[in-house]
Amino acid sequence: MNNSESPQEMVPPVEGVAGGGTAYGWDDGSLQDQSLLRGTIDPSRVPSSELVHVWCMPSTANVGPQETPRSLEPVSLLAARNERENIQIAIRPKVSWSGSSNAGVVQIQCTDLCSTSGDRLVVGQSVKLRRVVPILGVPDALVPIDMPVSQINLLPGETTAIWVSIDVPSTQPTGQYDGEFVVTATKTDAECAAQFHDKSEKYQVYRELRNCLDVIEQIDGKPNEEVVERAKSATTTLRRVLLSPSFSDFFSENGPLDMMDEDANLSIRLKLSLTVWDFVLPTTPSLPAVIGISDTVIEDRFGVEHGSAEWYDALELHFKWLLQYKISPYFCKWGNSMRVLTYTSPWPADHPKSDEFFSDPRLAAYAVPYSPVVPCGDLAKDYLQKEVEILRSKSHWKKAYFYLWDEPLNMQQYDAIRHQASDIHAYAPDARVLTTYYSGPSDAPLAPNNFEAFLKVPGFLRPHTQIYCTSEWVIGNREDLVKDIIAEIKPENNEEWWTYVCMGPSDPHPNWHLGMRGTQHRAVMWRVWKEGGTGFLYWGANCYEKATVASAEIKFRRGLPPGDGVLFYPGEVFTSSREPVASLRLERLLSGLQDIEYLKLYSSRYGRDEGLAILEKTGMYLGPERYTMDHNPIDMMRGERF
Amino acid sequence: MNNSESPQEMVPPVEGVAGGGTAYGWDDGSLQDQSLLRGTIDPSRVPSSELVHVWCMPSTANVGPQETPRSLEPVSLLAARNERENIQIAIRPKVSWSGSSNAGVVQIQCTDLCSTSGDRLVVGQSVKLRRVVPILGVPDALVPIDMPVSQINLLPGETTAIWVSIDVPSTQPTGQYDGEFVVTATKTDAECAAQFHDKSEKYQVYRELRNCLDVIEQIDGKPNEEVVERAKSATTTLRRVLLSPSFSDFFSENGPLDMMDEDANLSIRLKLSLTVWDFVLPTTPSLPAVIGISDTVIEDRFGVEHGSAEWYDALELHFKWLLQYKISPYFCKWGNSMRVLTYTSPWPADHPKSDEFFSDPRLAAYAVPYSPVVPCGDLAKDYLQKEVEILRSKSHWKKAYFYLWDEPLNMQQYDAIRHQASDIHAYAPDARVLTTYYSGPSDAPLAPNNFEAFLKVPGFLRPHTQIYCTSEWVIGNREDLVKDIIAEIKPENNEEWWTYVCMGPSDPHPNWHLGMRGTQHRAVMWRVWKEGGTGFLYWGANCYEKATVASAEIKFRRGLPPGDGVLFYPGEVFTSSREPVASLRLERLLSGLQDIEYLKLYSSRYGRDEGLAILEKTGMYLGPERYTMDHNPIDMMRGERF
Repeated sequence: MNNSESPQEMVPPVEGVAGGGTAYGWDDGSLQDQSLLRGTIDPSRVPSSELVHVWCMPSTANVGPQETPRSLEPVSLLAARNERENIQIAIRPKVSWSGSSNAGVVQIQCTDLCSTSGDRLVVGQSVKLRRVVPILGVPDALVPIDMPVSQINLLPGETTAIWVSIDVPSTQPTGQYDGEFVVTATKTDAECAAQFHDKSEKYQVYRELRNCLDVIEQIDGKPNEEVVERAKSATTTLRRVLLSPSFSDFFSENGPLDMMDEDANLSIRLKLSLTVWDFVLPTTPSLPAVIGISDTVIEDRFGVEHGSAEWYDALELHFKWLLQYKISPYFCKWGNSMRVLTYTSPWPADHPKSDEFFSDPRLAAYAVPYSPVVPCGDLAKDYLQKEVEILRSKSHWKKAYFYLWDEPLNMQQYDAIRHQASDIHAYAPDARVLTTYYSGPSDAPLAPNNFEAFLKVPGFLRPHTQIYCTSEWVIGNREDLVKDIIAEIKPENNEEWWTYVCMGPSDPHPNWHLGMRGTQHRAVMWRVWKEGGTGFLYWGANCYEKATVASAEIKFRRGLPPGDGVLFYPGEVFTSSREPVASLRLERLLSGLQDIEYLKLYSSRYGRDEGLAILEKTGMYLGPERYTMDHNPIDMMRGERF
Repeated sequence: MNNSESPQEMVPPVEGVAGGGTAYGWDDGSLQDQSLLRGTIDPSRVPSSELVHVWCMPSTANVGPQETPRSLEPVSLLAARNERENIQIAIRPKVSWSGSSNAGVVQIQCTDLCSTSGDRLVVGQSVKLRRVVPILGVPDALVPIDMPVSQINLLPGETTAIWVSIDVPSTQPTGQYDGEFVVTATKTDAECAAQFHDKSEKYQVYRELRNCLDVIEQIDGKPNEEVVERAKSATTTLRRVLLSPSFSDFFSENGPLDMMDEDANLSIRLKLSLTVWDFVLPTTPSLPAVIGISDTVIEDRFGVEHGSAEWYDALELHFKWLLQYKISPYFCKWGNSMRVLTYTSPWPADHPKSDEFFSDPRLAAYAVPYSPVVPCGDLAKDYLQKEVEILRSKSHWKKAYFYLWDEPLNMQQYDAIRHQASDIHAYAPDARVLTTYYSGPSDAPLAPNNFEAFLKVPGFLRPHTQIYCTSEWVIGNREDLVKDIIAEIKPENNEEWWTYVCMGPSDPHPNWHLGMRGTQHRAVMWRVWKEGGTGFLYWGANCYEKATVASAEIKFRRGLPPGDGVLFYPGEVFTSSREPVASLRLERLLSGLQDIEYLKLYSSRYGRDEGLAILEKTGMYLGPERYTMDHNPIDMMRGERF
């Protein structure tokens, strides 16, 4: 301490308040009469609202264990047909009532959402519940829970969030649908004595019943006295079993208890209301978002051999599961120097499964492999020619693209692309080759500075690339550079400009890294729409670190920001199901793609300038460093569509 | 992006590695042959080491859910008799094997620690296990678990820590004690099918058995055919029940399964070794550490009325539980302007309980109330005189002190202390009055600057205070100021210098706030010993925010750093027990007090300068901003005692 210290620095280290010292009782206002809660708390006799906080949070909130309670308000959502809308319901114990290391167990239940005309959004089908589970301490994994009723353990001092998704079918009648989300504090199963105390107790019951059976099993031809004797013995045994503590929960002083005596009036009831608009989101997304799935990761983690029947099954499971997110998956195997083998169907073009995959109306684009995915008799070149000839004859050919190299960096790599593209265009002049890049060749500069060289890549690669797919990282916060990039693209030659994100850009720019804000995740797609790209690529959705057991702990790869290249998790880590577990970030990707459909509809009516104007007017997205952190502007934008 | 950007800024956003992109497989070295783990994982057939990481961490580590695994090494601890030594055992799942939202369940078991001569440190008595539970996301609460065997749920991607405490009795023979900590991955109870799937399934079984009983119950006098018929019917029912899925776990193709076939060889065994030294820590701590317990908080939270039988019980429970931490509790009620009523025994001085409390050899100091704690017939003044007369006649009187006011700030408050102290000294000239302060009176400056004024407080208060208890915050990182403070104290008049911490000092200085490092918590006591204070005060150990339910969520008070004034939690929040739940920080307080005994022993042999020298030599504590963040120097210091 400096002797010349000013008096202000000598502030009291503790401020006093009467009644217990230092601001004791400031929270008093929220204390109600808790006289019901003296002693052991029986949740079947106390309103659940005395035991838990329940409140809603928007889907763009990251609701972690430390989230503090808010007031409970009814939920009103708006959705188009063929849209998924999400809301989170947060639950936090006010007290502990279980007597175990849990604070307690709550039963959560969701009803169907019904319209006055009797139409329904059925729970388990259109309405789904998932628990938000932290990854590296950040809320991310959405683990399915039982529907319509499930039990959740709550921990003292921790908030748990339930992610509620409502998928509105394309044919759903418009109107308002109402339902309820019900939270009821309960005893644990053990406390209900619905279960045996332990295995040996159950074994004891089993043995007694077996003995009983042995006694009365073979009575045919036995003398009457023996039959009676045996029946009496069995009676005694049965009576003993039934009166044992194992079944004591079915007795009370007034005889057997009613199984269904739980007082539903004690529950916390949250009204869920969804208005379905007279507008159907297109089945095929307007903006193709192509997302890589590492086949190597699938092969290693699930122990399926490349080309085996199990391998085809595993890939198909991934493909079909991802389609619900309105993205267009491509499988991917990395070669040397970032050469990539990409393919949307693991089967050859003439296989019925390929037709099924490519024709799916939800698929907006598919990758065609340059060489055989699974070794076959043909030479690679013959293979390519045959594949292309088959695919060109199909109506889905317009979705096809070739993705040959990830981020070429030098002349040799650029030349490899030119060479492969020449082969492709020899068989199909209208084939689309996609190239991702963020710079020109480092060993033959196209211009005196990097950005100028980057701009010249289309001129340099033409006609060997049709989809110029550039890193958003290059643009940084200089949205004005977009017009320079677009000026180099020739739409009249069917050229397109797409973008991608990966390690970069980093915070505060939109990306899908773990730990970013919810609106930051969703803004990836807002950015694409505002900048005017006509497609989007993401390098990996399952690129966790290597493991050889399906349920192995998920580790992110060294050198990558957490969550980069990972948009879902193997189901086996969290459940007994093989169904993948989505991340919050994948849901926000879908929400962003849906937002694009809203913006596109609005622009189709009033023009793109008006579409851009509502981004500004609502404050939803103004630029890569200026977008909303709050959810309201999103609903405002969506409400603007009429 | 700036066009003049240098090439270095244009670094590749993704680095490529063959085989799956971006550093895939870097962790490969740790992958063993996991062929055992294909498909559904049966923990009873796989070494647990394939399923979980187990490793040790020192007691000064804050082991949170994100703690990464280390290699498993045997534990060797050193402890004196009458000392508590702690170690943490961390467990993290490598894979999920439960098929539920848990990764899996592990059974943990600790054996007694035994010496070759047959002496024991018995688990459950000398060896205790507690689970480390985060508070506000920071590992802090130590929740007791069952001993010697317990089951722990592990979550995917999260580390769980078990706090192992070994209390060495004063009479324990010296020598080496060996034991084991055993971790076994197991099926959950539900998977063992020890339990019914749900209550309705069990009810079904119950009803079938009841019907069966009804059928065979009353057969006396019935015709033979009917008896046989009834027995057959019962047989059918019983057979159906026994073959139902409820009991399927007792069958296999080879007949009923052996209940006890778990292979103990699959467990992970961690050797625990403790060497008990030929040195007994004093029963009465050398340094009195007096710690406040808010009676108001106890009254509100546990619903006990001041002065009722339950109130005395609650206070006694707290007093006795805290004594194990070698601290000297005082109960405390705040009045206006930080006037405090402090008392170590809620009973009058002539009550046998007061004698029991004050005579406890573990108690180093006790607070005597200035006025009646529970209203009695006497006038306050008569009360004081009577109390003092009784206590002065006791041998424990040397432990007594009066603590009248918390941090007087102006002349009126200083005068109040003088007035009360005069009363006390009138009846007992040798009574010790303790005053906490960090400044002189603000309305009558004792010197031109704050620190000079602070230094003059002893001269100003003399003879009305004997224990000058100053905030460590005043000293800051200027350890050299300590000599100025001590120069004002007159030990020849039985004056003492004590210190305290509360809101301040803050990081990086030693204190007990949540989120500080483990060595920072433990260093509070190292600092006291180095600075030469002869006692220590802490304002509150249970000063959470107001609540009126014992198991209510713990909230820290507004305006205080998290954890300030809170060293333990109500047991009801985490367990069905009333026994308080200690914080890590309380354990580190105890460890720090034990460290003082080591330093004192060393200094008693070689002199205080040598004692100070080992602080420096080991790097354990050099000053409030220079102390070890690593555990090793602590064990080095403790090893120096010979």
